[in-house]
Amino acid sequence: MPGDRMQGIDSGPALQPHHDGSPAYVLGPAAPQLGGVLRVRLRVPAGAGAPAAVWLRSLRDGEPHLEPAGKAGGDGSHDFFEAPLPMVNPVQRYRWYLQYPDAAGEVGYRWFNAAGLHRRDVPDAFDFRIHAGHPTPDWIKESVMYQVFPDRFANSGADKPRAGWMVACDWDTAVRGTGPETSRQFYGGDLPGIQGHLGHLADLGATVLYLTPIFPAASNHRYDASSFDEVDPMLGGDAALVSLVEAAHARGLRVVGDLTTNHTGAGHHWFVDAYRNPGASTGQYYYFNEEHTEYEAWLGVPSLPKLNWNSAALRERFILADDSVAVRWLKAPFNLDGWRIDVGNMTGRRGSEDLNHEVARMLRQRIEEVKPGAMLLAESTSDAAPDVPGDGWQGVVSYSNFTRPLWQWLAREEPPEQNGWFFGLPQPGPARLDAADFVATHREMSAGFSWEVRLANANALDTHDTARAASHMIDGGQELAACVQFAFPGIPLVFAGDEFGLHGFNGEDSRTPMPWGAPEKWGKDLRPLYADLAALRAGHRALIDGSLRWIAAEGNLLVWVREHSTGSVLCVVARGPVAETNLGAAAQLAGDPGSALLALGNAVDVAVDETGEVTVGASGPGASFHLAKATGAWS
Amino acid sequence: MPGDRMQGIDSGPALQPHHDGSPAYVLGPAAPQLGGVLRVRLRVPAGAGAPAAVWLRSLRDGEPHLEPAGKAGGDGSHDFFEAPLPMVNPVQRYRWYLQYPDAAGEVGYRWFNAAGLHRRDVPDAFDFRIHAGHPTPDWIKESVMYQVFPDRFANSGADKPRAGWMVACDWDTAVRGTGPETSRQFYGGDLPGIQGHLGHLADLGATVLYLTPIFPAASNHRYDASSFDEVDPMLGGDAALVSLVEAAHARGLRVVGDLTTNHTGAGHHWFVDAYRNPGASTGQYYYFNEEHTEYEAWLGVPSLPKLNWNSAALRERFILADDSVAVRWLKAPFNLDGWRIDVGNMTGRRGSEDLNHEVARMLRQRIEEVKPGAMLLAESTSDAAPDVPGDGWQGVVSYSNFTRPLWQWLAREEPPEQNGWFFGLPQPGPARLDAADFVATHREMSAGFSWEVRLANANALDTHDTARAASHMIDGGQELAACVQFAFPGIPLVFAGDEFGLHGFNGEDSRTPMPWGAPEKWGKDLRPLYADLAALRAGHRALIDGSLRWIAAEGNLLVWVREHSTGSVLCVVARGPVAETNLGAAAQLAGDPGSALLALGNAVDVAVDETGEVTVGASGPGASFHLAKATGAWS
Repeated sequence: MPGDRMQGIDSGPALQPHHDGSPAYVLGPAAPQLGGVLRVRLRVPAGAGAPAAVWLRSLRDGEPHLEPAGKAGGDGSHDFFEAPLPMVNPVQRYRWYLQYPDAAGEVGYRWFNAAGLHRRDVPDAFDFRIHAGHPTPDWIKESVMYQVFPDRFANSGADKPRAGWMVACDWDTAVRGTGPETSRQFYGGDLPGIQGHLGHLADLGATVLYLTPIFPAASNHRYDASSFDEVDPMLGGDAALVSLVEAAHARGLRVVGDLTTNHTGAGHHWFVDAYRNPGASTGQYYYFNEEHTEYEAWLGVPSLPKLNWNSAALRERFILADDSVAVRWLKAPFNLDGWRIDVGNMTGRRGSEDLNHEVARMLRQRIEEVKPGAMLLAESTSDAAPDVPGDGWQGVVSYSNFTRPLWQWLAREEPPEQNGWFFGLPQPGPARLDAADFVATHREMSAGFSWEVRLANANALDTHDTARAASHMIDGGQELAACVQFAFPGIPLVFAGDEFGLHGFNGEDSRTPMPWGAPEKWGKDLRPLYADLAALRAGHRALIDGSLRWIAAEGNLLVWVREHSTGSVLCVVARGPVAETNLGAAAQLAGDPGSALLALGNAVDVAVDETGEVTVGASGPGASFHLAKATGAWS
Repeated sequence: MPGDRMQGIDSGPALQPHHDGSPAYVLGPAAPQLGGVLRVRLRVPAGAGAPAAVWLRSLRDGEPHLEPAGKAGGDGSHDFFEAPLPMVNPVQRYRWYLQYPDAAGEVGYRWFNAAGLHRRDVPDAFDFRIHAGHPTPDWIKESVMYQVFPDRFANSGADKPRAGWMVACDWDTAVRGTGPETSRQFYGGDLPGIQGHLGHLADLGATVLYLTPIFPAASNHRYDASSFDEVDPMLGGDAALVSLVEAAHARGLRVVGDLTTNHTGAGHHWFVDAYRNPGASTGQYYYFNEEHTEYEAWLGVPSLPKLNWNSAALRERFILADDSVAVRWLKAPFNLDGWRIDVGNMTGRRGSEDLNHEVARMLRQRIEEVKPGAMLLAESTSDAAPDVPGDGWQGVVSYSNFTRPLWQWLAREEPPEQNGWFFGLPQPGPARLDAADFVATHREMSAGFSWEVRLANANALDTHDTARAASHMIDGGQELAACVQFAFPGIPLVFAGDEFGLHGFNGEDSRTPMPWGAPEKWGKDLRPLYADLAALRAGHRALIDGSLRWIAAEGNLLVWVREHSTGSVLCVVARGPVAETNLGAAAQLAGDPGSALLALGNAVDVAVDETGEVTVGASGPGASFHLAKATGAWS
């Protein structure tokens, strides 16, 4: 009966319907206005599994509304169904209803939402959504971000002040991943050092330099700022930042800073004043108890007092004033191109108070006033989607929807005997999953983002807060992961050192000084691969904001196509051996299967059989990208 | 590998962990305060599938926190794991992490949340949640609600005024399910008529009489009130309500009204004043365009102008004043015991505005001031959970988590040839699903409710807005559905006529005049069954607020146990034939298997095999309830 699984449509993505927020499927302005009407489309493979009827279900002021969708083109292998979608609410939610009566007269239906196809009723949590207004600037979607942890990137050799509590390290000193000295090891990396390596970034195809904090602090990570008024003199001070940004801009590289809106350091002059003097002008910036002896701190860590966003004075000083923290570094002479916001998910949240969305909106609005189109991403390491309705953070730096499931698909079959790590879970490494689970997790964890937000989410393989991907993935897994990263919606975020295949067993340990000119310290030289992937992405708009349609996701095999009016790209990644698989009508090549746009090793075979259908097979880890025909979206 | 399905724990509920919000699993006050610390427990079957470690993951100010859970009792067949859960936020979310390393040294984990057990990462949407404060009064949890549509219940024979637009009908006139006269057919049911049948309600075991609207209106359903200041004279006026409530209270029956907070009728004197005179004192109660020619209305229906909750004057008149609409009917001489709020899901929502939660909270707070413990349920027919964080509506009248999936499990194999209906979906009836899908849907659609809210949610088989369950269920399906209804967390909501097995092909058609003394119009006489079920529920506290642990859910078979310190009940419902199934260690009877607490037909066999394990089999549709042993929660 239809309520049971139907061969084909319930067994994998190739014969399933598809929709996403890309222009092939959403017809109308890129930043639709509240009250406007879009037309949305569903692609449905033709043939035995085709539905008898398709309807669009949208939520309007909290009430579901069903609208019939009519056929609107197709090429024989599939049909498009189309329906109007009024933007009734600022985040307009919708999903598709497909009716499948069977020969016996029974009735069956499927819901198709952003998490996939469902044989039964499902909550609204995974509805597709489009947010009104607030477009993501093109340059952000087009970004390849390169993350630098300033103390560990490059030392210009300039003299610099050192405090007594610092543990001065040579560039060759081993990083201590745990222990009391971990945050006090200083290697002397500085901004002039970074400036001296901008050519390296350009060679990799990076377009955005993202700097973790550069304000003075009591640690090498500097997330415990003692001031937001100057660049740490150890890094070269304000003049070094001006110089670095000018040099970067001259190369077409943008520069983004890192700001802690959740807390400051306990050594911050705002906090020192407030703590010492209950009547201080900054007294309302923090949460003190009545006796003024205790204060709220990030995860209870006393060195990181939490900012109190109820304070109008804090809002003024941090966001609203002409020379506010968030504003002044975006303006001349510094000219930063935006911010990554630290601990975005906790900012403004405390007990019964939740000012998170309010602070995010205020920041976005103020930044738009001062520097239209500047970047505003927030760290939100877990399930981030509910915090990004589009009018605050443009996107997030998260691990939930991309990094974690990708680590799991590409995990080593056996975890390391020691130093296991998996994003804070108490287990010795990522638990290995197959490709279907990677896709299912990715879809569920991405469902709550509008497409516009997804394009601004940063997809990292690792960061300064995680172990290195190479330490937990199969041999060659990082390369496969990078292929997925650059062919996915969202900003590829490369952590300095990824291009050398560096290892690291936790976040602290991953902050390895860059092994410039020391190939013996490289895991692998992946600079050519990253450069090739960045060039591939830059050369094929489909990889930036083309639709993402899944074609196969099973065991070792991931196949998807990114479709765009300017050309489409078929993406094949194989974790291991894959028996020859026919992709049926789900994909067609636009050129000779022998001429891959990019092939990682020679492990993947993409061919066309005698009937003209594409087949995929693989002998081992590999990836292959091919020009594809768009299957009707623009026909 | 552990990432793959593990025999046992991934194949069905019997060997899976369990947790819910009941006192067996949450140790602490019933209405925990923000800042307090609860202890929460997970039940894990012992043996091969037991986890190596269990951790509690909670969200604290937006950040996940992991806490190890320690063993805390068990009886050999299972273990309890326990961890502290601080109430950091007003709605405290949490789930469980279970680690399963396998013999080969690989790592695997499962998340266990309110939707079930998951082999991969899942969003926070289905986390368990506990809300701070705002307990549901016991009488509400203990309720059996009986819904009356006043025009169709009973005519006392009193003379009553009739307007010219009304279509006067005899009690035997057929209800017109569609057409222009549908809302104008008046059968003359009145409040004295209801009062004359209170014995019928008492005989059925009902404890709450819920009246759909009784204010004057321009339709027989009266959801288009022309005044909130008096009871419709056609129903007997204010005096009849006073008399009805007094008589009901004298029998221990409570009486709940129905209030439209989303809209009034276009004939309401507030609206007439506001529409005619732009300067009227009620002008701000509604949404008019600038020219004062058009106004916002419910789904665009002009007869139902939408209320504008931005208006301070409306808030005062409707909620806050001493004689406000929401307040005065709860006070003497009327003494209603609470409200069912119509269109709760749309109230206060319009475009960019969302005042829904604010209005719900204001109503709850005001009602608590005037009549502590009064009922406040909201209609929210679709996915309702996000709207019920506990401080507004106590619960909802919804179809999403109970009614719809239950209809689907018990659906006829073939839909009717005409007059198909399934909650507004464009299909000829419910699509039949098996028991596993019923449970999965129920869990996902309930996950967003705290346990305290679930106990106040109304579970209906049908209402005045739906077709009748009997029209779309298998023969005997309504009886099975009623067995589920009375043995589930939440308030059984019986729509007048259910006890006569009435049919109806849509909501209008289901508003059949009650066929008093006309057995030829009854589908079946189910009065004894409803009375028995109400007595069973009243006699076994476990059925009211005991934990709900699933034991089997496959095809035709549903088995669950409700566990409570005062005694536990094993519930078995079979839709059709079920081969003998061994429940293993998941359930134990507390008495002779031959002595069912209640058995529907003789179709279900519950026995104990030679090893002492419980077996279940069935020859056809049936249900059986048995005293069970609580498996360790209180040991």
